[in-house]
Amino acid sequence: MPMKVTVAIDCMGGDHGPAVTIPAAEAFLRHHPDASVILVGRPEALEAGAATLAARFSGRVLVQPASEVVAMDEAPANAMRTKRDSSMRVAVNLVKDGQAHAAVSAGNTGALMAISRFVLKTLPGIDRPAIASVLPSIKGQTYVLDLGANVDCTPEHLLQFGVMGAMLVAAVEHIERPSVGLLNIGEEAIKGNDVVKQAGLLLRDSGLNFYGNVEGDDIFKGTTDVVVCDGFVGNVLLKTSEGLAQMLARFLREEFGRSLVSKLMALFALPVLNRFKHRVDHRRYNGAALVGLRGVVVKSHGSADVFGFEQAIHRAAEAASNDLVERITTRMAAMQGVVT
Amino acid sequence: MPMKVTVAIDCMGGDHGPAVTIPAAEAFLRHHPDASVILVGRPEALEAGAATLAARFSGRVLVQPASEVVAMDEAPANAMRTKRDSSMRVAVNLVKDGQAHAAVSAGNTGALMAISRFVLKTLPGIDRPAIASVLPSIKGQTYVLDLGANVDCTPEHLLQFGVMGAMLVAAVEHIERPSVGLLNIGEEAIKGNDVVKQAGLLLRDSGLNFYGNVEGDDIFKGTTDVVVCDGFVGNVLLKTSEGLAQMLARFLREEFGRSLVSKLMALFALPVLNRFKHRVDHRRYNGAALVGLRGVVVKSHGSADVFGFEQAIHRAAEAASNDLVERITTRMAAMQGVVT
Repeated sequence: MPMKVTVAIDCMGGDHGPAVTIPAAEAFLRHHPDASVILVGRPEALEAGAATLAARFSGRVLVQPASEVVAMDEAPANAMRTKRDSSMRVAVNLVKDGQAHAAVSAGNTGALMAISRFVLKTLPGIDRPAIASVLPSIKGQTYVLDLGANVDCTPEHLLQFGVMGAMLVAAVEHIERPSVGLLNIGEEAIKGNDVVKQAGLLLRDSGLNFYGNVEGDDIFKGTTDVVVCDGFVGNVLLKTSEGLAQMLARFLREEFGRSLVSKLMALFALPVLNRFKHRVDHRRYNGAALVGLRGVVVKSHGSADVFGFEQAIHRAAEAASNDLVERITTRMAAMQGVVT
Repeated sequence: MPMKVTVAIDCMGGDHGPAVTIPAAEAFLRHHPDASVILVGRPEALEAGAATLAARFSGRVLVQPASEVVAMDEAPANAMRTKRDSSMRVAVNLVKDGQAHAAVSAGNTGALMAISRFVLKTLPGIDRPAIASVLPSIKGQTYVLDLGANVDCTPEHLLQFGVMGAMLVAAVEHIERPSVGLLNIGEEAIKGNDVVKQAGLLLRDSGLNFYGNVEGDDIFKGTTDVVVCDGFVGNVLLKTSEGLAQMLARFLREEFGRSLVSKLMALFALPVLNRFKHRVDHRRYNGAALVGLRGVVVKSHGSADVFGFEQAIHRAAEAASNDLVERITTRMAAMQGVVT
């Protein structure tokens, strides 16, 4: 399906800035002949790269100057108050003004969330936006939210996450009625805390394709398309998974590098190891959606490379051209009768 | 150091019962010439195995009959009320009566916790016992608690978990002042919920070797010896890690099994893959301690094999012979002046 979509790209965000964001924009434009981008950043930093890109993809590349950059470790409140002309804020403003259908940034997560919420506002019925990301599973992939935007959640918040997650999967993965699981723990005596129990009741009556409770391992088993949890739990499980994957990769490297013989073995096994690596390549899953806003905003990992950042742009374009915002709005409106 | 310790073993618990527990007891006795065991279970189920063991390790094997067995999926309250003569309860009773220094069971976690708490009671100053387990890390291993016994925790509970975890590591790993980390999330704007923030203040004043906040990936980096979290978060992170490890192992198997060529490659790489497998072998980490009780109780994974169950017995013996209970008691008493 052709995507007549325009994505505003915060070219300054992330660990690498324009060195990664501009080549990623180029790859995106090459894959989507109908899409365009607006490159946002300091003119002197974008200059050369942006000009080359504009020449190559005539009429599909705009440059929007922004004089400031939000630092990766800057306090979100500070970024909001003092940097009105940051590349991040200008990119989000382009979505608000209808000049872009989506914004992508690899910058400071807290600042991007604060700015997006302030500029775009939340959708009707949504109390708080959430961060939704994709993790690989045995069956394909699982969307998990919230991953850290909301630490203390009410049952109603978890219900809203369920709606936002389901609509995100519907838009981006083209699954009509995605299944939604509620993250809980297995111990019979103490099935979850009160908030989760209440959220289960709300989700059951929501009209969503609610599967019921799932446990941590169900994320990677692919038991449901969406897994809902509060931002504290979500952030811990994401970081824990990253840590475990890194440890295993390191152990594997160490064992294969231990001696000349094992290095030779690694050489023999290389094609297989590479296929394995590709299958769990975290770059393929890059691009967390900030959902619940009146506009599409996607956060790339700060350390993403060109391929990784390109995936984040893809995801943003896919969400925007498949009406993520409208889907959430409609669904929330339909629920007004059921849950208030 | 010789371990003059007696371990009561619930031989009926777990997926395999005496077929695993008795050979594991044998392996344990072989490794510890000064230790003894009390095998608890239905006489007809233990008969043959126990008799052989008693003959082989003269004077170091006792059999304690118990007429009932707690089912793996039985409601803990039911197990408590109706099965006064379950192998699990009889094993824990042996600890209470001073006939055994520790009890080990691979049975129903909820029932084991309920029975242990009812029979042994908690230590002075401890509101709730916790479940502490070991995970591998780049530097060695990390003890994490609570893993599911306590879903809603106060800051004081988390402080107590810190004390229990540190004393467990001191006893079992012989580390004098183990470092303790408080599991939190990294987002600057929203550094944790109120309970975690308060717990951080308490831990800072506790006299423990408190490192400060850690994130999920620090568990596998081995940033601290102990990581403290509430039971909901702990259970989710444990299950998530299990799920991820299983998925990766499956992908690796699938890739190496894909074709004749890749099968050949696997054959070449086998020695290295086996070393890798050994290094992350979850059986080596089997045996979760139920800490905070007036006695040592260790829970083995229900599906543990002989090697895995043996590790759980080791851990119980190590904790008991290194005064886990006394260490926690002393430490809690020392804190009375500081934190009340």
